[in-house]
Amino acid sequence: MTDKSKELKTTVTLMNNRLHFNGMVEGNAPISIDYTPPLGDNLGYTSLELLLLSLSSCLGSALLTFLRRMDKHIINFTIHSTGFRKESHPTSFSRILLEVEVTSSGITEAELKKLTRMAEETYCPVWDMIRGNVTVDVNFNIIIR
Amino acid sequence: MTDKSKELKTTVTLMNNRLHFNGMVEGNAPISIDYTPPLGDNLGYTSLELLLLSLSSCLGSALLTFLRRMDKHIINFTIHSTGFRKESHPTSFSRILLEVEVTSSGITEAELKKLTRMAEETYCPVWDMIRGNVTVDVNFNIIIR
Repeated sequence: MTDKSKELKTTVTLMNNRLHFNGMVEGNAPISIDYTPPLGDNLGYTSLELLLLSLSSCLGSALLTFLRRMDKHIINFTIHSTGFRKESHPTSFSRILLEVEVTSSGITEAELKKLTRMAEETYCPVWDMIRGNVTVDVNFNIIIR
Repeated sequence: MTDKSKELKTTVTLMNNRLHFNGMVEGNAPISIDYTPPLGDNLGYTSLELLLLSLSSCLGSALLTFLRRMDKHIINFTIHSTGFRKESHPTSFSRILLEVEVTSSGITEAELKKLTRMAEETYCPVWDMIRGNVTVDVNFNIIIR
């Protein structure tokens, strides 16, 4: 068993004669990965969608960890991500918009902004790896209940 | 329906009172995402594993697209990825090792190296987004059949 605090391992295996892959980490259900037509067949997540899920779950984990240390009660927590692609190759994201939606009994936007800055600077490793290459904007939608 | 050549959209939703998320793109099975104990409960892929799957499927798609244009017959195609984390925050990958395993009737390592360079420089958008921040090494294991 890998010590995930030190190194992580994944495998992608081609499943057809086009671009459909199974993504795998031991102990988890495989992830269906594919590209859009005409090269692929839309049979799964695209590589760029996996990057968005990686970044948003990383930010979400950092924010929730901080919020719970502050004894905030979280009722719902969702992050919607949109990645805007460049028009010519490499068609990577020029900009990513993360929309954080939190339902809680008492959180301010100033608190969320401060925690997001801490995540960006120190606690979100995925954000660290795209630093300087992609603009990341974060918006907040706070629902007090 | 989003035009995926221009922008991509994903959502992560918190599923418990720890760090278990469901990752979603419309039309696909949800991906279970979680962090390792003590903060999480190992109920799914970690954010950093999703980054490895994103990068390796991106490289795989670029390589296969080139190989097919060269009329190469691909019998099996797998990429094993290992990400080596930094010891202090941000615990991002200092290095990623991608091991490409291809079974084919006739491919040389020189050909694969050249195509990998093209992917790195131009055709793999995920690699483009981590450029300068992470060392990516690629090895090849070619099985001629």
